[in-house]
Amino acid sequence: MKIGLDIMGGDYAPKAIVLGAIEASKILSDNQQLVLIGNKELALPILAEAGIEPSTFEFVHTTETISMGEHPTKAIAQKPNASINLGFQLLKEGKIDSFSSAGNTGAMLVGAMFSVKTVPGVIRPAIATNVPRLTAGFSVLLDVGANADCKPDSLLQFGLLGSLYAQHIYNHNNPAVALLNIGEEEEKGNMLTIAAHALMKETKAFNFIGNIEGRDLFEDHIDVIVCDGFTGNVVLKLAESFYALTLKKGFKDKFFSRFNYEQYGGSPILGVNAPVIIGHGISNPEAVKNMVLLSRNMIESNFVDKVKAAFK
Amino acid sequence: MKIGLDIMGGDYAPKAIVLGAIEASKILSDNQQLVLIGNKELALPILAEAGIEPSTFEFVHTTETISMGEHPTKAIAQKPNASINLGFQLLKEGKIDSFSSAGNTGAMLVGAMFSVKTVPGVIRPAIATNVPRLTAGFSVLLDVGANADCKPDSLLQFGLLGSLYAQHIYNHNNPAVALLNIGEEEEKGNMLTIAAHALMKETKAFNFIGNIEGRDLFEDHIDVIVCDGFTGNVVLKLAESFYALTLKKGFKDKFFSRFNYEQYGGSPILGVNAPVIIGHGISNPEAVKNMVLLSRNMIESNFVDKVKAAFK
Repeated sequence: MKIGLDIMGGDYAPKAIVLGAIEASKILSDNQQLVLIGNKELALPILAEAGIEPSTFEFVHTTETISMGEHPTKAIAQKPNASINLGFQLLKEGKIDSFSSAGNTGAMLVGAMFSVKTVPGVIRPAIATNVPRLTAGFSVLLDVGANADCKPDSLLQFGLLGSLYAQHIYNHNNPAVALLNIGEEEEKGNMLTIAAHALMKETKAFNFIGNIEGRDLFEDHIDVIVCDGFTGNVVLKLAESFYALTLKKGFKDKFFSRFNYEQYGGSPILGVNAPVIIGHGISNPEAVKNMVLLSRNMIESNFVDKVKAAFK
Repeated sequence: MKIGLDIMGGDYAPKAIVLGAIEASKILSDNQQLVLIGNKELALPILAEAGIEPSTFEFVHTTETISMGEHPTKAIAQKPNASINLGFQLLKEGKIDSFSSAGNTGAMLVGAMFSVKTVPGVIRPAIATNVPRLTAGFSVLLDVGANADCKPDSLLQFGLLGSLYAQHIYNHNNPAVALLNIGEEEEKGNMLTIAAHALMKETKAFNFIGNIEGRDLFEDHIDVIVCDGFTGNVVLKLAESFYALTLKKGFKDKFFSRFNYEQYGGSPILGVNAPVIIGHGISNPEAVKNMVLLSRNMIESNFVDKVKAAFK
């Protein structure tokens, strides 16, 4: 197994990424190899300082990078040797089994769709994230930004993608899938959610439990929360800001602490032909370590094959 | 000045409403008369118990009510003597100067649009709510549920309605109006917000400061936050649930305490030809008192005339 990691992406790259890779390497088995993609000359001193042999990792060296502010499509098209592009090239060729980066989210999305491409039958991939549940565990919230405008049949597919993720990555049995809406009754909502509800009610592809409202986001009985990427992105960032406020104000609490993105490391792009994970821009070594472990989990569980089978 | 109040609306009606009316009456001037609409037979024992003269209030007696779960349009059409319908009838006839209720939100919205109607030039009214700012004061968030689907020109108008409210009710000078979006750059967003941004950028009707993201909701420099009613409703309910969690977990904090709906009493419907306020379903006497005081404020500031002038 080869786990690809862009060491140039994120606000604290390459240092935080390399340190995270070191932590992950201590956990990985011998046959689980981390492949670091980016400027090797910058990585070597970090390894030396940590007393780690460079041979612990494979390296794919490049000096070109895509910065956080760059236009995704342009950057992907015009910088073939950027670390993100090289990562997707390796992923497409099967030389790595997963690729993750805490860099430019748009470039990761565009790169994934241009290289490994969308799973046949999937209209649009979605970015998923974790939402802590009140008592224990996480639900999967999607889409959180890949698709600002969605059609009802995309929301239906997000339900299936999220259900597969909750099942195979979180080991939730027969995951309960909810539609984020502005009322519990099926006739409530905007045009999109009313139509999506009608489709979900009829599907046998997953266990649809109906509409939920913004106040129900953290309920324990929910495994998957489906929404369009605009709503999901607003919700995610609002939740993050609340968590940041509780931290700032010194509130300590088990539930609130589970909002910490470090614990799960990154947001997978679901519906593409390989495991691809986008890390938070502010990823620290702990977050990077967990992004690598999530990559391993997605490879080991054959998640992408499960998606392919479900959409056949 | 006559301030109309439905005493039958809300989870704790009529008791909480009548007790709130009593509290408000102690603050109102002699020429500010509360008109209680609903079952007088139920109100009198509450007044007697509180030692308050019934003559403190005017009464418009009716035994018919619209419950929380009823279909708004049907209820408004089929229950002419329901307290909400009577309130709007009085408002239309100019016998009261404002009307508020903690009852069925949909019935309040439909009732307002059928009776006093939308201000000429306003495409769709919006429901506004308060968002506490980090350091001090509140911003106005709209729409939070009147319009699940919006067109860009409606969002533009919400900017003006919110700006007028922030100016005349909150006394914010030249209110800063922001568009809730999924990126700060003007080309970011869904089809709706990209088009709305283009309209807002060109307007001279209010002070547009650009896009904000979900994480910026509580920033001090923002006076008005514009979004479609679906997004606003999800955001409002998510924020309420966070507040409820901080309460439940015993976190005490000045900022979080300002999420308490009791402090501002209710959400006005902006863009109709009279002051109309919808109270929270769980309104307690404190919330009702503040809903009455907000009604007075909207009457005294001639808010509706300001809206009419702005949309002429």
